[in-house]
Amino acid sequence: MKLATLRNGDRDGQLLIVSRDLKKAIQAKSAPTMQLALDNWNTVAPRLEEEYKDLNNGNTNAAFDFDEAACTSPLPRAVQWLDASAYVNHVQLVRQARGAEIPETFWTDPLMYQGGSDTFLAPHETIKMETTDWGIDMEAETAVILDDVEMGSKETLALSRVRLIMLVNDVSLRGLIPAELAKGFGFLQSKPSSSFSPVAVTPDELGSAWEDGKVKLPIHVDLNGKPLGRANAGVDMTFNFAKLISHAAKTRPLCAGTILGSGTISNKGKDGGPGKPIQEGGLGYSCLAEERMVETILTGKPTTPFMQFGDNVTIAMYDNDGKSIFGSINQTVEKYNPPA
Amino acid sequence: MKLATLRNGDRDGQLLIVSRDLKKAIQAKSAPTMQLALDNWNTVAPRLEEEYKDLNNGNTNAAFDFDEAACTSPLPRAVQWLDASAYVNHVQLVRQARGAEIPETFWTDPLMYQGGSDTFLAPHETIKMETTDWGIDMEAETAVILDDVEMGSKETLALSRVRLIMLVNDVSLRGLIPAELAKGFGFLQSKPSSSFSPVAVTPDELGSAWEDGKVKLPIHVDLNGKPLGRANAGVDMTFNFAKLISHAAKTRPLCAGTILGSGTISNKGKDGGPGKPIQEGGLGYSCLAEERMVETILTGKPTTPFMQFGDNVTIAMYDNDGKSIFGSINQTVEKYNPPA
Repeated sequence: MKLATLRNGDRDGQLLIVSRDLKKAIQAKSAPTMQLALDNWNTVAPRLEEEYKDLNNGNTNAAFDFDEAACTSPLPRAVQWLDASAYVNHVQLVRQARGAEIPETFWTDPLMYQGGSDTFLAPHETIKMETTDWGIDMEAETAVILDDVEMGSKETLALSRVRLIMLVNDVSLRGLIPAELAKGFGFLQSKPSSSFSPVAVTPDELGSAWEDGKVKLPIHVDLNGKPLGRANAGVDMTFNFAKLISHAAKTRPLCAGTILGSGTISNKGKDGGPGKPIQEGGLGYSCLAEERMVETILTGKPTTPFMQFGDNVTIAMYDNDGKSIFGSINQTVEKYNPPA
Repeated sequence: MKLATLRNGDRDGQLLIVSRDLKKAIQAKSAPTMQLALDNWNTVAPRLEEEYKDLNNGNTNAAFDFDEAACTSPLPRAVQWLDASAYVNHVQLVRQARGAEIPETFWTDPLMYQGGSDTFLAPHETIKMETTDWGIDMEAETAVILDDVEMGSKETLALSRVRLIMLVNDVSLRGLIPAELAKGFGFLQSKPSSSFSPVAVTPDELGSAWEDGKVKLPIHVDLNGKPLGRANAGVDMTFNFAKLISHAAKTRPLCAGTILGSGTISNKGKDGGPGKPIQEGGLGYSCLAEERMVETILTGKPTTPFMQFGDNVTIAMYDNDGKSIFGSINQTVEKYNPPA
């Protein structure tokens, strides 16, 4: 089943059911919003599935052309947004770029931060920032949306609570991160509003690509129309979603509608070291910080700038037939003028 | 105006209007839930005010006895829970207790973390934990609930967005904090579900006690029926709510329904050093970590244990006539058995 949310002026939007090929959509009859569907998933999901079947089979005359640009993030706001850093390779490279080491425990104890879930950007919304001095970067990730998770759930139980899967752009302000990390209280100003793919899908839509709590497909990240990254989300994921959910629920339950991100997808190079740019035959990068790190290793300093006003990033994932699964995140950076 | 949320089986509960003396309540007609009231505050609040007047004047026959124990937290779940550490004295003492120094910037740049907002405990709900080895502690605080805040709002504009004020018990697991602080990603497992006072009030209800973005009244913290703390929330608050909101909104807007906490209320002693226990003529402590710190200074080691199974904490605040403003947080610690 594929779901999306239509911008309709309400804060939580209108739940849409989207055809498997992303061409058509209908307003869901079984629940008005994504959150209300998740709040009552066991009763609502079977009815949504019926609507989804009718849509795919052409058995509805309420269908209209699906427009990704008319969507908000699947949850325009959520009760929780947790983001891990499960590709420890990414952490290692980013820290190296700052001249810092990672502790050995980072390979056994997941890194995860609590993100702001109140104001997600739409998939095609501009990223507005006062200044590019803050080091605007994308982070391309996979994420799951959960049903209720009991406190203390072990990994198998935890994984059974995954209801939907989508992509994320965890927008990051690299220049503000070191000071916030040093304070120890986590990211606040350095992680502005994230955006998510227009479409969230049930795990069965991924077929065998959803396995062992990982999405085993490449994530396509393009910067200004040129390929930046094709890292495989199923490779080098040190902690799978079973482990991540269980980690998050250790000391408290998680409410239905919780979004949990994988962290920036990052594959090691063939020699086990940092990957290469796509233009040089590598898999590239899911964020600019990694590219800058590799440049630092090779030349002593980074040459690729962070995102500038006018720069555009797209993030998408394709099935083995080359068809888009989630639609595209498509965002351009724009200058913001704060209120006086 | 005083508002609360009645547990009614729905995830967001039923919005109540509570009489000024906390004796009577009515189901709000103008909005079904607290979040929906906040989503449309400008149009809904005047109608809630009318209902509140009628209740206080006895002009309604729908009123029933107000029962704090039947309430969820004013927002049973929220789009955002941000918690500052605005009483830098608290941070200094807690860090001293761990043998760590605080950087000078902590006095000028607010500490704030993103907390989990998906599963708040009810004001009278037990605090269930697998083990007391995690060092279960209370943190008594004030908090504000905000309307929408524009990204980049300066302090005066930010403060104008405060819609409601309440109390918090920011339950903390002291034993898990040092490792999470060291990871830099903020608190996750070490900050389980928080709880809030049964009643949230508009700033005008505090009269002159709401001044300069601070609540200028003592917070009453009792442990097992004995006074633990009477620190004044208006004293030694290094950063007021204007500063805190503006800090939170620097790189992104905040959605209506955002909760922002002050951090543990902590007053310095008369000599500028750590305070004394109430039993020795001091103002006591809003968390056990501080008491243990003072013991460490005086005797070389802490003697007060963290909360044990069966221990009870209450948190309340009274006006100058001795009347409870927000009702009481009243929580007992209980053993939790996780799913197999």
